[in-house]
Amino acid sequence: MSVTGRRTPTSAATVHALRDGELVHKSDRLAIEEPLEIRLAHFDQETTLSITMRTPGHDFELVAGFLLSEGVIDSKAQIRDIAYCLSEDPDAIQRFNVVTVRLLGLPGRASIERLVMTSSSCGICGSASIDAVHLAGHPELGAGPIIPFHVLSTLPDLLQSRQEAFRETGGVHGIALFDSSGALLCIREDVGRHNAVDKVLGWAMLEGRLPLSESVLMVSGRVSFEIVQKALRAGVPVIAAVSAATSLAVELAKDAGMTLVGFLRGANCVIYSGRQRIEIENHG
Amino acid sequence: MSVTGRRTPTSAATVHALRDGELVHKSDRLAIEEPLEIRLAHFDQETTLSITMRTPGHDFELVAGFLLSEGVIDSKAQIRDIAYCLSEDPDAIQRFNVVTVRLLGLPGRASIERLVMTSSSCGICGSASIDAVHLAGHPELGAGPIIPFHVLSTLPDLLQSRQEAFRETGGVHGIALFDSSGALLCIREDVGRHNAVDKVLGWAMLEGRLPLSESVLMVSGRVSFEIVQKALRAGVPVIAAVSAATSLAVELAKDAGMTLVGFLRGANCVIYSGRQRIEIENHG
Repeated sequence: MSVTGRRTPTSAATVHALRDGELVHKSDRLAIEEPLEIRLAHFDQETTLSITMRTPGHDFELVAGFLLSEGVIDSKAQIRDIAYCLSEDPDAIQRFNVVTVRLLGLPGRASIERLVMTSSSCGICGSASIDAVHLAGHPELGAGPIIPFHVLSTLPDLLQSRQEAFRETGGVHGIALFDSSGALLCIREDVGRHNAVDKVLGWAMLEGRLPLSESVLMVSGRVSFEIVQKALRAGVPVIAAVSAATSLAVELAKDAGMTLVGFLRGANCVIYSGRQRIEIENHG
Repeated sequence: MSVTGRRTPTSAATVHALRDGELVHKSDRLAIEEPLEIRLAHFDQETTLSITMRTPGHDFELVAGFLLSEGVIDSKAQIRDIAYCLSEDPDAIQRFNVVTVRLLGLPGRASIERLVMTSSSCGICGSASIDAVHLAGHPELGAGPIIPFHVLSTLPDLLQSRQEAFRETGGVHGIALFDSSGALLCIREDVGRHNAVDKVLGWAMLEGRLPLSESVLMVSGRVSFEIVQKALRAGVPVIAAVSAATSLAVELAKDAGMTLVGFLRGANCVIYSGRQRIEIENHG
């Protein structure tokens, strides 16, 4: 099973640019955005689980991470194979925009039902549907790791220095996984932040690294509920972000005992939850 | 039919903050993120069209804009009513997280099928599903308006000065609609950029302003395919953004004859498509 991307994440374009009032015609790079259809094959039937707009590359990691983070599977051992569509479609590009997964055994029924939405009648006022957004379970987070703030504060620059597609286009989100000493384990970029998270978590699962109990997930932008939920599925104890977290992201992080840090810029940050995992030098 | 929001977009929180190495315990404001379930009632049955994580407020505009931008309806005249869930659920908050729409007549079948995903078998290799992402139709864009660059260049500051939730939290996207003279028509904020777009477009539809053939949609961040697609459904001829556009956003804008401007900062910008609608003073 190949886990590498097949295509580049950026493309060339010719644009008009205004620079201090001067109009120039120049070449530029754009972040590629294309649909990826994720299909689950079971028995003789295929179900479309999701169509997501993503940046091509690391597609099998994206699919693996999606299955993990959405609660369809818990480990790599449940994956039989992952493949691009095999039919001889003349449209070679679309062919690499469809990925089919076969599992060993059955997927979690509740998760599939959540993904493949069905008709529902009113009565419990949506609370069942809405509660289903809170995924069933995740690995218990341990007490550690303890991250010195001077290590944490280096992560945004380490992330940015490796964001190659961002440097070319200014148009993609970056997500990186670090160990507790601040060493980079994996970085992925995507036009969709949730896709970049799935690619990183999928990489970790396919590498046999779950649960990620000694890791920090670094986010180039904001942290929503979905990001916390996905990270929890992989057992990530610490999320750090350059920008803000939402109310529900903070609520879920607190419930789960996760450390959530935002606005991490230079010597400044906001610790929304899990303060005990951050060692602040002059505060012990 | 009420079209105003019922709840505030931000909430109070207590956080630890590091300021130049000094740890303080302080109060903060977070952007509220909560699920909204959008249901379509037809005959005696309700279908869940979408569950989206959104910032509460302007929920009926969000739902109206979603129906428009996803191709379920083309005009306000097709809406019979929009209402929060009426059951006497003890959970008062969840009650306002479910909105049900009743239409006059039937919705577009293709759009519903796209929204409520169904099982599909391989053979055409996903191209049907993927082509469905390209929505069926939109109002033809006219030749105008012509926007002087000195007007366009004022829009980011006008947007930012009115982004109240962003000023409080740093955690929401802002979308504003301007007329061709640079006068603000509507601004909405949301943790989801697509939701903020739907709120603005829903406002315009409920106000009877479609098609928006003399308007500029200003985006606080990046422009994806989805944003261009939604704006096209409302007949918006010009999108301007503070950050980058993706490859597919540019492709769709070019196909449709839409003007798409990115990296609009001071006297600089990138014109991805529709250069003829931007009047550059020293270039005529």
